[in-house]
Amino acid sequence: MKIENYIRDIQDFPKEGILFKDITPLLNDPIARTACLKILVNSLKNQKIDKVVGAESRGFFFGMLLAQELNAGFIPVRKPNKLPYETISASYELEYGSDSLEIHTDAIQKGDKVLVHDDVLATGGTAKAVCELVEKLGGEIVQCNFLMELTFLNGRDKIMKHPIFSVLSY
Amino acid sequence: MKIENYIRDIQDFPKEGILFKDITPLLNDPIARTACLKILVNSLKNQKIDKVVGAESRGFFFGMLLAQELNAGFIPVRKPNKLPYETISASYELEYGSDSLEIHTDAIQKGDKVLVHDDVLATGGTAKAVCELVEKLGGEIVQCNFLMELTFLNGRDKIMKHPIFSVLSY
Repeated sequence: MKIENYIRDIQDFPKEGILFKDITPLLNDPIARTACLKILVNSLKNQKIDKVVGAESRGFFFGMLLAQELNAGFIPVRKPNKLPYETISASYELEYGSDSLEIHTDAIQKGDKVLVHDDVLATGGTAKAVCELVEKLGGEIVQCNFLMELTFLNGRDKIMKHPIFSVLSY
Repeated sequence: MKIENYIRDIQDFPKEGILFKDITPLLNDPIARTACLKILVNSLKNQKIDKVVGAESRGFFFGMLLAQELNAGFIPVRKPNKLPYETISASYELEYGSDSLEIHTDAIQKGDKVLVHDDVLATGGTAKAVCELVEKLGGEIVQCNFLMELTFLNGRDKIMKHPIFSVLSY
């Protein structure tokens, strides 16, 4: 089972010059998807996880599967004004300007063991913002995991104080 | 286990006069979440499902769990310009104006048995658009299921040719 065979390269998406890694073939194949989930779970080496935090919106896919497999709560981190209850936010830089992410204030209890998940670790801006939100609420980050890491963008430098695991590296 | 205890009412979200049903407490509780998943799966009475289609983005949560539980492919239906590969689209009406949803053209094969999932059946606009996309690609809809149905909005009238199941009704 080669997980990379289920990741599709899309040239010039979302804009010219970007090679987008499309995970929809992986989502659409239950055998490959289950194999990928098992790799992510095994990387945790039976460490206890209370909460899985997934970043909007591609982090919701395997984030939910991880939460279910680990018998943990699932917490969505979302773009501004999407979460209906009381939130805190963290901003991150984009190529031009900045954006922010939000989490519900009651999502995590102090001392909760937290797994942070997203589909891709690229520049690390999103992952860093998610980690900040988790820590503001008193969560302890056990691992940040990703389906893919684009190593040439050095995203792991932004979250290097946490254990990092990626199924695939490019 | 009362699933409704894990749905939180939020007054005036996303705008004044709307009572929003917040599913994040349900996502964050593994026992309630698993009970809810079991109710959804049991409603299918062992009918074969090849693909689960989930609508952006709250349909991704239980859509992924259903796909994993049913050993089926998962297919995200998304807002315009989010899916990177070749797509077809279907539009639906909003209170003012319209919006559209997209699906990858290679997501479904002719004759695939499809389960359509979203968190809420409200006016039925989204659900109808998702069903149109599935049928355009030759999929056969086995059921449309939802965590909640807002019965006073009569959404089921728009998709009544398909079997409909909702865990909760308001």
